[in-house]
Amino acid sequence: MIRDFKTILTALAEEVQEHLQDCLKIEGIPLDLQKAMEYSLLAGGKKIRPVLCLSWGEMLGADRKELLHFAAALEMIHTYSLVHDDLPAMDNDDLRRGRPTNHKMFGEAVAILAGDALLTQAFFVMLGSSLPSERVLAACREVAAAAGPQGMVGGQCLDLMATGMGSMNLEDLKNMHALKTGALIRASCTSGALLAGDSADVHKAASYGTNIGLAFQIVDDILDVTGDEQTLGKPVGSDLSSDKSTYPKFLGIEQSKAMAQDSAELAKACLDEYHGPQKEFLKSLAQYIVDRIY
Amino acid sequence: MIRDFKTILTALAEEVQEHLQDCLKIEGIPLDLQKAMEYSLLAGGKKIRPVLCLSWGEMLGADRKELLHFAAALEMIHTYSLVHDDLPAMDNDDLRRGRPTNHKMFGEAVAILAGDALLTQAFFVMLGSSLPSERVLAACREVAAAAGPQGMVGGQCLDLMATGMGSMNLEDLKNMHALKTGALIRASCTSGALLAGDSADVHKAASYGTNIGLAFQIVDDILDVTGDEQTLGKPVGSDLSSDKSTYPKFLGIEQSKAMAQDSAELAKACLDEYHGPQKEFLKSLAQYIVDRIY
Repeated sequence: MIRDFKTILTALAEEVQEHLQDCLKIEGIPLDLQKAMEYSLLAGGKKIRPVLCLSWGEMLGADRKELLHFAAALEMIHTYSLVHDDLPAMDNDDLRRGRPTNHKMFGEAVAILAGDALLTQAFFVMLGSSLPSERVLAACREVAAAAGPQGMVGGQCLDLMATGMGSMNLEDLKNMHALKTGALIRASCTSGALLAGDSADVHKAASYGTNIGLAFQIVDDILDVTGDEQTLGKPVGSDLSSDKSTYPKFLGIEQSKAMAQDSAELAKACLDEYHGPQKEFLKSLAQYIVDRIY
Repeated sequence: MIRDFKTILTALAEEVQEHLQDCLKIEGIPLDLQKAMEYSLLAGGKKIRPVLCLSWGEMLGADRKELLHFAAALEMIHTYSLVHDDLPAMDNDDLRRGRPTNHKMFGEAVAILAGDALLTQAFFVMLGSSLPSERVLAACREVAAAAGPQGMVGGQCLDLMATGMGSMNLEDLKNMHALKTGALIRASCTSGALLAGDSADVHKAASYGTNIGLAFQIVDDILDVTGDEQTLGKPVGSDLSSDKSTYPKFLGIEQSKAMAQDSAELAKACLDEYHGPQKEFLKSLAQYIVDRIY
């Protein structure tokens, strides 16, 4: 990992945060709606998706300021999905990032609308990029495919259907995560590449994104298990007998860790032919995702 | 009104319906999600928004097949808004077009996701148009602005806030409707004009759309009152004393009717400089909207 990785990550996240504030200066928007959008969008978070778009795009030569439109939009789409997933009819969560969820603060109706508004405004923001039209169109369509029924929304539906049924096998689990979280992480990389305009690089960006998306999810599942050990005093693996399908349940902790590290290595290998500071940053980012389990 | 107006309207609606079926052939989509999307999207309806886009676009010389992408997307966005508006947390409606609402059939969680999926897929479909990229971008952005927080979602939020408060004056009411239903009707016209590529026509399309949107809403409010008389046996005007802000409440029935007709005339005047069958059709459409009250 490069020495100043976390400094760069923080600086990029702050730059995105500033741009997000601008994205919510919307003329004629009702005050309650604006407050609800701001509450969730500006709540912090590592901004991994925007950072992936910025890094891939800049590494391949795209203009940083124009990439910011897409970086912001990816965070808006991610945020809308969290707001809707937290709703009582869905995961029914009261807390998100240590604060009351959007519907706990603003009521269910406004939370639904705030999610709808963030999703729609994300497209408005992306479509305002002044990069060449063909590139903007291709990148927008990539994001729409990743966010929609054949991507994120489809994955959330599969997850919902499986909850409590305990019927997913390892392939089902992989497919569900590939849609629910993998698709948008992948599109964060490929949209950056598409905006830089060299379509030959898009499959490298896709492969990098797919692999860090997989690593990210395996690590999340591992932390669910080992995290419980620390916070609840349960022995490692006590969740393995529950109904929830996870990587540790299918593979055990050690094999899951190895699979996460393998995925990170495959991601890093996608960067072999590139150069410059973004290359080193993206390599470190792949390792950073896995390092959370050590 | 042209003699074959209703025949043309029905034929156009059928053409859009066929294209909508194609739009839902999405690879890898979960079956439950697809069923829920189809249930609401293919439920019928007059397809006024798609028809506006097709007619304005064709009148100004755009290719019909390429316009169909946008026509379908406008109906998908309209449908998503109905699915979300009907939810228990919002208007809590059990019936829509004489059938159980989406959440009554598929549950709240799937209904929320079906709405999210329709909105996202609408952008995917629009962005797949092979018309010149600049035009597609401009038209997509127009639709995003109309559907988002400064348009439809904002209007729904204002409506929600006002419900039961009885605090809207005539200006508030006009503004709420201009956002909630007016913006997307207007964008249906302007997106057609933008796709045809002559930006000088866009303000005519905008003015036409604004005026038929206003006429449409006034007529809806009038039918709410006079419809009650027929179905509930209440005298005309019995709803005027309720909390709900409507045009008849502020202006009375006769003045409301006159205002709707005036708006239709203003819409028709926007077509003066154009020619061809679409011009005559759009004139008839403006009158058709108002004729529902006679």
